[in-house]
Amino acid sequence: MARIGFDVGGSSIKAGIVDGDARILARASAAFPTGEGVDAIASILRDLALEMTSQSGIGWDKIESIGVAVPGSIDRSGRIILNAHNLQLHDARLMDALENSFPGIPLSIENDANAAALAELCAGALRGCRTAVLLTLGTGVGGGLILNGRMYPGGMRNGVEIGHMIFNASGGRCTCGNRGCIESMCTAAYLIREGRKALIEFPSCSIATLARGEFGAVDARLVIDCAREGDKIALDIFERFLTALAGALSGLIAALDPEMLAIGGGVGEAGEYFFDELRSRLSVPGHACIIVPARMGNSAGIIGAAMLLSEFGTTIG
Amino acid sequence: MARIGFDVGGSSIKAGIVDGDARILARASAAFPTGEGVDAIASILRDLALEMTSQSGIGWDKIESIGVAVPGSIDRSGRIILNAHNLQLHDARLMDALENSFPGIPLSIENDANAAALAELCAGALRGCRTAVLLTLGTGVGGGLILNGRMYPGGMRNGVEIGHMIFNASGGRCTCGNRGCIESMCTAAYLIREGRKALIEFPSCSIATLARGEFGAVDARLVIDCAREGDKIALDIFERFLTALAGALSGLIAALDPEMLAIGGGVGEAGEYFFDELRSRLSVPGHACIIVPARMGNSAGIIGAAMLLSEFGTTIG
Repeated sequence: MARIGFDVGGSSIKAGIVDGDARILARASAAFPTGEGVDAIASILRDLALEMTSQSGIGWDKIESIGVAVPGSIDRSGRIILNAHNLQLHDARLMDALENSFPGIPLSIENDANAAALAELCAGALRGCRTAVLLTLGTGVGGGLILNGRMYPGGMRNGVEIGHMIFNASGGRCTCGNRGCIESMCTAAYLIREGRKALIEFPSCSIATLARGEFGAVDARLVIDCAREGDKIALDIFERFLTALAGALSGLIAALDPEMLAIGGGVGEAGEYFFDELRSRLSVPGHACIIVPARMGNSAGIIGAAMLLSEFGTTIG
Repeated sequence: MARIGFDVGGSSIKAGIVDGDARILARASAAFPTGEGVDAIASILRDLALEMTSQSGIGWDKIESIGVAVPGSIDRSGRIILNAHNLQLHDARLMDALENSFPGIPLSIENDANAAALAELCAGALRGCRTAVLLTLGTGVGGGLILNGRMYPGGMRNGVEIGHMIFNASGGRCTCGNRGCIESMCTAAYLIREGRKALIEFPSCSIATLARGEFGAVDARLVIDCAREGDKIALDIFERFLTALAGALSGLIAALDPEMLAIGGGVGEAGEYFFDELRSRLSVPGHACIIVPARMGNSAGIIGAAMLLSEFGTTIG
């Protein structure tokens, strides 16, 4: 038996047939039909599924369930996309459209960060965990929780928003209305922005030298590499970033006592120096949480979506 | 059928026989045998159990299980008290002693804050919740989590330490080694300490007037009442307290999306003004967590301990 997972993003839709061990057996992709609505999306998903089944020889009768990961919030019934800004979808009845495209097959829709945590649980860095956290530090902060060995979609099914954990209640205002959320400082985007500022203000700093003065060459990894080499400007940026991140995550570790915390996104690829520094600041007495890089990369959405209706998917209806 | 719960504290041991609806059918208590070790404790628990069964007419054959709540950390096997400073117990093999006192009866030991959360779930403010938080703001900050409709003892069974969630990663150093934990500012003890300072420094402030200059009259409720009446000194104290508390709790609400958050301890009795102010600062977009006073008061330990081996007790072994 196998399952199909769709990772729906603002530019493309990625699809895969996934086996019981969370391995991808077949792949397909298509452009996202911007502005065309849920029926167009469901129609494309059907085409991708047909393409994969015919190419792989895995028949429809072997498809146990289909899952769809979207970058947005889902209503509590699991049928409606409340808001997915990158898809330009609001109050969109995706499940109705999916049921027309895939009659008789069990279907599930989930936020893509939750799906990514599920993928890490089934096949990646969080395999075998009962309690764990995935944190994705990219343009924004995403992430998901594994509790009792299953993906946790939030107690009220309103989603898990680790990016809006607070490291400084008197800090700067976040788009969510609260102050000092980690989303405001703990992103790859923050490191890039501050790194580019440094490139202008301090043309002799390591960041400017390594980037050869080019904006486009400044990424999270470069700023962290310069901090590792002891560059004062880079260290200062990295220190602010780490203090905020460690503050919020220490609280999460104290409250949930997880076995493992995986970090993905641009920052997750920054290498061992970043992880060592973070580990040294995440010591919470009495708790022994292991900090590791996430492993699923670009396949997280497909695999997580496919596994939504598996034994590792959500328990909360 | 019924269960026995013991709430073991540094000054006294409280006991109760509790029915399936978490009602206390019989009570007994005794002084805590300071310095005498686990065998003495188990012997007293046995005496209290016999006293209650004989007085109530509920026979031993009706006792389904026995639970013991202690103010300390329990090892992952659930058999050893690692540290309970108020009981002067360290690495104490309580379960061995209990098994001698109560042969053949299912036994469980749990941290008292987790037990209190379980009591609120079974019979108090959190009844019927799938996902909820109990926060006890007294001398320190205690608390427990309800996840998936059951008490959550921490993913690694190292405990849930809501008091060490962080509201300000660059704040003051906490006894745990991290900075800006809510335990350092969000206690009844903090309000009392700051209120007493105000009484000395500002003898004309409302706190001093209401307390008639007496240290002993300053409690959390008095400081909060003065803030409600608009006293500037009290408002300043209360504001710092609330900002810290709301910061850490907003993060917990964003991450876990709980249905309900109950607040107990001295601060939980401070009345509706405190709750209204906290609610107004705990607005987390997309999450609708209800904030209420805890209800179990002094019975929380007995009832929570009794319910440890019920269907609402922990799932994680």
